[in-house]
Amino acid sequence: MSARLFIALGTASQVPTRHRNHNGYYIRWDDEGFLLDPGEGTQRQMIFAGVSASQITKIFITHFHGDHCLGLAGVLQRLSLDRVEHKVEIYYPEYGQKYVDNLRNSSVYHNVAKIVEKPFAKEGFIFENKTLTIETRKLDHTVESFGYRFQEKNDVTMLPEKLKEFGVLGKNISKLKNDGKIEIDGKIIELSEVSVFKKGVGVAFIMDTRVCRNAFELSKDADYLICESTYLSAETADATKNGHLTSKQAAEIAQKSNAENLILTHFSQRYFSTAEFVAEAKEIFENTIAVKDGDQVEILRKK
Amino acid sequence: MSARLFIALGTASQVPTRHRNHNGYYIRWDDEGFLLDPGEGTQRQMIFAGVSASQITKIFITHFHGDHCLGLAGVLQRLSLDRVEHKVEIYYPEYGQKYVDNLRNSSVYHNVAKIVEKPFAKEGFIFENKTLTIETRKLDHTVESFGYRFQEKNDVTMLPEKLKEFGVLGKNISKLKNDGKIEIDGKIIELSEVSVFKKGVGVAFIMDTRVCRNAFELSKDADYLICESTYLSAETADATKNGHLTSKQAAEIAQKSNAENLILTHFSQRYFSTAEFVAEAKEIFENTIAVKDGDQVEILRKK
Repeated sequence: MSARLFIALGTASQVPTRHRNHNGYYIRWDDEGFLLDPGEGTQRQMIFAGVSASQITKIFITHFHGDHCLGLAGVLQRLSLDRVEHKVEIYYPEYGQKYVDNLRNSSVYHNVAKIVEKPFAKEGFIFENKTLTIETRKLDHTVESFGYRFQEKNDVTMLPEKLKEFGVLGKNISKLKNDGKIEIDGKIIELSEVSVFKKGVGVAFIMDTRVCRNAFELSKDADYLICESTYLSAETADATKNGHLTSKQAAEIAQKSNAENLILTHFSQRYFSTAEFVAEAKEIFENTIAVKDGDQVEILRKK
Repeated sequence: MSARLFIALGTASQVPTRHRNHNGYYIRWDDEGFLLDPGEGTQRQMIFAGVSASQITKIFITHFHGDHCLGLAGVLQRLSLDRVEHKVEIYYPEYGQKYVDNLRNSSVYHNVAKIVEKPFAKEGFIFENKTLTIETRKLDHTVESFGYRFQEKNDVTMLPEKLKEFGVLGKNISKLKNDGKIEIDGKIIELSEVSVFKKGVGVAFIMDTRVCRNAFELSKDADYLICESTYLSAETADATKNGHLTSKQAAEIAQKSNAENLILTHFSQRYFSTAEFVAEAKEIFENTIAVKDGDQVEILRKK
């Protein structure tokens, strides 16, 4: 089982359809579980996908249209019902505080979950630990909407045989790793001589937006770009009017940002098939897929 | 197509399962559409059942546990999105006002629907028109919970040949219908001589409750009793502790209240099949069915 996995819980824009639930996404990231934009019905979509409430550690909301947040009420109540012991953080633009308040108090329940609210007032880094940074940037929708970038930090893998050959032992190993070089017996040893550089994996999550600079910034060199594509190019005028992307525009963002893989989602109910979305995008960016509810995509480490 | 129809939109108690959505029910009643206890995901369950938002005229909530109300947010937003022109009334116990407020304001949307809030402070008749009364009575749950009774008024069908025979013509017909008798040429004509009595159809909706007097009162002579049966008899202690009914208790209510048909729903996630619920109930009350999501039951007129 891969340590990192993307699951599309729901893939409909605005309203659910027979085949697509309201939006909702889950990313398993090492020992963390990120729930993104839980629309109505996410609690049940999680059951279909085999994701339990206890697997969630952080929730991210891009903006407060119903298809991106109504499911929060059920998910938070489920955390209480299932007596989830660990803290669960919710990240969201601060204008949404009243909606978070209301969603947290929308029915009678015994609230015992450890929910930590993390509203952010402006774009930038909202989380950092030893291996990961999470950044948010403002997009261009009909209401304030923010995209996210999940970025594994670059790392090095030390090569035991090389360390032995160069005589780097014990505490000197971490010193070399931290400083980038070390002097042993008068000789400078560079980190690169005894290790292999491991570039961190980056995942961009771009929901409701028109084409804007920050969509490119968040997607820069991303290994996986999860991107809304509500419309096909034929409806570019509607897309722009309603603050959305076309499949072609999503592909252009992927291509110009030097992304590796493009995952299309958030389709308007007017479309029955996503084949045209993929075809349109592939003209510009080959590594494109469109997800349906329940689809899983392994987030692979860098080769 | 029958003028009256009951549709089970969701049939799970407390939490959804793979096979059962959160609670939710729709009753088509002549030119009205009643949505009852819409749990999370009702918006989508309506799509599966072929019920549009525009077909709703009244919404009823028994109590404010999440599985009976979280879907209100999505349904109300859908009324706005679909530009439903007519008024939609919401009936609920008044302690739920804050939850209704929060559910109506749980995300950003353009609110243009004509929602009329109808909180009620105590049991009694909450609606009456020429053909229908709607009554609510307090049940016995862990929070205040109210059952509903939808009662078609009794009526008479005038027999044209008999009217002619007795010489009842023009305005005298409605006078006779209103007064029960009329004097024509010195002779008293009783309504029953020129008409057939038509007893009104009654539907009782009993959600979360222990066995209590009002469950019997609401179900009295009901043609259809829609009743929660969260547990089997083996779990009677749990049922009582958690404020619920067993299948056997539901059957006893139907039997002692002289109901015609019993529709079991609201099953705990611990059960995979409802066969035992029906078997248990049928030992006491033969005309029992258990519904699954999407099931429809015609509400037949009296023979």
